[in-house]
Amino acid sequence: MSKTSIVAEPNKQEVIISRTFEARRELVFQMWTDAAYIPEWWGPSTMTTIVDSLNAKKGGIWRYVQSDQAGNVYAHNGVFHEVSSPDRLVHTYEFEGVPAVGLVTVTFEDLAGGRTKLTETTLYPSVEIRDGVLQSGMTEGVIALMDRFDALLAKHSL
Amino acid sequence: MSKTSIVAEPNKQEVIISRTFEARRELVFQMWTDAAYIPEWWGPSTMTTIVDSLNAKKGGIWRYVQSDQAGNVYAHNGVFHEVSSPDRLVHTYEFEGVPAVGLVTVTFEDLAGGRTKLTETTLYPSVEIRDGVLQSGMTEGVIALMDRFDALLAKHSL
Repeated sequence: MSKTSIVAEPNKQEVIISRTFEARRELVFQMWTDAAYIPEWWGPSTMTTIVDSLNAKKGGIWRYVQSDQAGNVYAHNGVFHEVSSPDRLVHTYEFEGVPAVGLVTVTFEDLAGGRTKLTETTLYPSVEIRDGVLQSGMTEGVIALMDRFDALLAKHSL
Repeated sequence: MSKTSIVAEPNKQEVIISRTFEARRELVFQMWTDAAYIPEWWGPSTMTTIVDSLNAKKGGIWRYVQSDQAGNVYAHNGVFHEVSSPDRLVHTYEFEGVPAVGLVTVTFEDLAGGRTKLTETTLYPSVEIRDGVLQSGMTEGVIALMDRFDALLAKHSL
């Protein structure tokens, strides 16, 4: 069973993803926003991800470009509204080619024993768009991404 | 009766405001994003509004500071995700002091006879937050703002 929780209540416009990591939240926040490590965890391991831009401050732009083994290219971008280390991130999200923009809030919560609960809430422009994203295979992608991020943290927490 | 339409459907997280102006959409878009004119229309006339920042491009920050006659100060800010003149704007919105961030999409639609329909959709983090904003007097503020913007356009369309 996956350790990642994905909640999408009926008729709501959001998806709430959460995961608890065995790492201090300063490290979790830092790794989540460090361009040097994004290629190692952002997306499934069948994709190659490169960071075109990642400027984690208010107004900063992020853009990641993925390619699969068949040579298809997918780009994702957004701007940061809030970067409050190690508590909270707020940024927009756009899958290039799709006109719908989402709003993402990520919180990093200190738990006992040096653990951290990360919660990512994505607000979509409509219930229909949210449901379309869920049906597009997003769930498997998120689980793979969180597992890879967990493994990366484990390597750096030693 | 106001010419501004404000729609907030039950159990949804958004408010949709629309208004048709007797002006070409290039002018409507330009005036909507011009720092020199914001103090003349952004908010009710009982408030003084100053533009602390307005950089209408992707990643650009906007921040407007209002004060009322009693000396109370209210600040609003956000970042632009998309600025596509004269079609569409997407930006975040924060009322400083309130931790909830909204996502705003403004579209400018060409109508016959040189008129323009402006539609502003604001997506709130929850139905409760949206309903709280609606109950805080936002409706009267929006109607006043749109009336002032309409008057400003009329002056510049001549």
